Amino acid sequence: MQRPTSADIQQVREFLLDLQARICAALEQQEQLGGGSAQFMIDDWQRAEGGGGRSRVLQDGEVIEKGGVMFSHIDIRQLPASATQRHPNIAGAKAQALGVSLVIHPKNPNIPTSHANVRLFVAEPEGQEPIWWFGGGFDLTPFYPDHDDIKHWHQTAFDLCQPFGEKVYAEHKKWCDDYFYLKHRDEQRGIGGLFFDDLNRWDFDTCFDYIKAVGNGYLEAIIPIFEKHREQPYTEAQREFQLYRRGRYVEYNLVYDRGTLFGLQTGGRIESILVSLPNLAAWSYRPEWDENSIEKQLTDYYLKPHDWLNEL
Amino acid sequence: MQRPTSADIQQVREFLLDLQARICAALEQQEQLGGGSAQFMIDDWQRAEGGGGRSRVLQDGEVIEKGGVMFSHIDIRQLPASATQRHPNIAGAKAQALGVSLVIHPKNPNIPTSHANVRLFVAEPEGQEPIWWFGGGFDLTPFYPDHDDIKHWHQTAFDLCQPFGEKVYAEHKKWCDDYFYLKHRDEQRGIGGLFFDDLNRWDFDTCFDYIKAVGNGYLEAIIPIFEKHREQPYTEAQREFQLYRRGRYVEYNLVYDRGTLFGLQTGGRIESILVSLPNLAAWSYRPEWDENSIEKQLTDYYLKPHDWLNEL
Repeated sequence: MQRPTSADIQQVREFLLDLQARICAALEQQEQLGGGSAQFMIDDWQRAEGGGGRSRVLQDGEVIEKGGVMFSHIDIRQLPASATQRHPNIAGAKAQALGVSLVIHPKNPNIPTSHANVRLFVAEPEGQEPIWWFGGGFDLTPFYPDHDDIKHWHQTAFDLCQPFGEKVYAEHKKWCDDYFYLKHRDEQRGIGGLFFDDLNRWDFDTCFDYIKAVGNGYLEAIIPIFEKHREQPYTEAQREFQLYRRGRYVEYNLVYDRGTLFGLQTGGRIESILVSLPNLAAWSYRPEWDENSIEKQLTDYYLKPHDWLNEL
Repeated sequence: MQRPTSADIQQVREFLLDLQARICAALEQQEQLGGGSAQFMIDDWQRAEGGGGRSRVLQDGEVIEKGGVMFSHIDIRQLPASATQRHPNIAGAKAQALGVSLVIHPKNPNIPTSHANVRLFVAEPEGQEPIWWFGGGFDLTPFYPDHDDIKHWHQTAFDLCQPFGEKVYAEHKKWCDDYFYLKHRDEQRGIGGLFFDDLNRWDFDTCFDYIKAVGNGYLEAIIPIFEKHREQPYTEAQREFQLYRRGRYVEYNLVYDRGTLFGLQTGGRIESILVSLPNLAAWSYRPEWDENSIEKQLTDYYLKPHDWLNEL
């Protein structure tokens, strides 16, 4: 494995900050096109142990009800054993982690909630070669699924994976299905996308190229979905269904999401970690929907893993 | 330890079902006095492995926005090792668990959310004496704390504990503070009450008497609080603060509550376990309140452990 230099890490940092700025700008444009004026405020923060981040949050918009696009670059003096279960040899090592993570909760139930993340981890165990890997992906959580949206989302994922190998899409698509699964509900969080971790199978530059493709791919994948549904009317019942389904998003993030739980357990910046939670969510006891309703089809069909590109 | 007979367990079951009925009737009366007509529906269910329960849920009332009062009596053929960490000698044993557990989310932010639980666990390891213990307690989560409410809640707890020993209140009050703590927020869930587990220090009948006192004590403690605040006006801002604070209730139940997590991990009845979640909850990014506001005092003072009976 080619070892990343400080200059390599600096390049990743610059890509991430630029990605964050481009994503916020593109989403603010959607907000404006939808008649809103809400913007992504900037909240820079530092961490006592070293490093810090730039949180960007938009709240109470006309198009985006709540969105957080968070950059962080953290220095770790000594990796705790709990953080390195898969890599016991780097416990105690100096390390750094940098990434962008976002969750966007639109107001219109016809626009899905979306999540994306790209990150790099580098550990420098004393007297050994540095160990590094990338991780990330993006996944989509529709309330009222639209076949063209789903195909477009997965086609974008498929296309960006192709230059890196024929099996990359299938592998990272399956990993996404496996990861974003609510065991206690026997449901997927949404219709998936890509997810990967421990990525260092190619040289550093190629892995970084893949990360760039994933980060840029999120924007390519999500903006046309906003464009298509931004002005679509919806009913009060659809809004209620959206709030109810957002409850599942909360359940996933608080019960299963490894990043969230790791952050809570290790004293991460709580506001940044929990910005992923929607501004409003609902739980009702055993709600029922008509057998042929789209609400029932959502769980019966769409929230199971499918080979969307061939099935739809 | 006196060993509970089938007749003893039957008596506990009858007490629990009666307690559930009395609590639902008393809360429905509050609903009616507040101009509502919502009732606790009855949802009986059975479990393939043995046993079942009676869930009672009231939704969308005028006074109670969502309330669940759940009875269950479960037969376990073989205790999983994960369920018996504190008692490794009963792994694999036949067992039964019965209890009532409730969470009530009122609509008016001046009425706190309340939780109570009473339960009995009996394991019958082959060739050994049965092992049993009671657990339970009640705790209060105010949004707009009222000193008389807090004193009344803890005085009721104090008085019911007195016949069982001078130190019982202090011990179970501290256990409650330790248990209902959100580490990642460094906040208590509320102003506490009583919590205990593994209770078999007295003979079975005395422990059962204590459980009865706790179950009945919940009603004595909560009803005057409903009476006092039921008609109290509130502002839209207070309502928003309530929804925001309910987010913390969701965080506690999904991240920390052992009963919830155990239920999710072991394939319990999801609807009954998650009926504790509010019908509506909110998260906003770094909301701020005036330095001297009651909203700020809630976290700065009330959501820390205090000796309420002597301090207020």
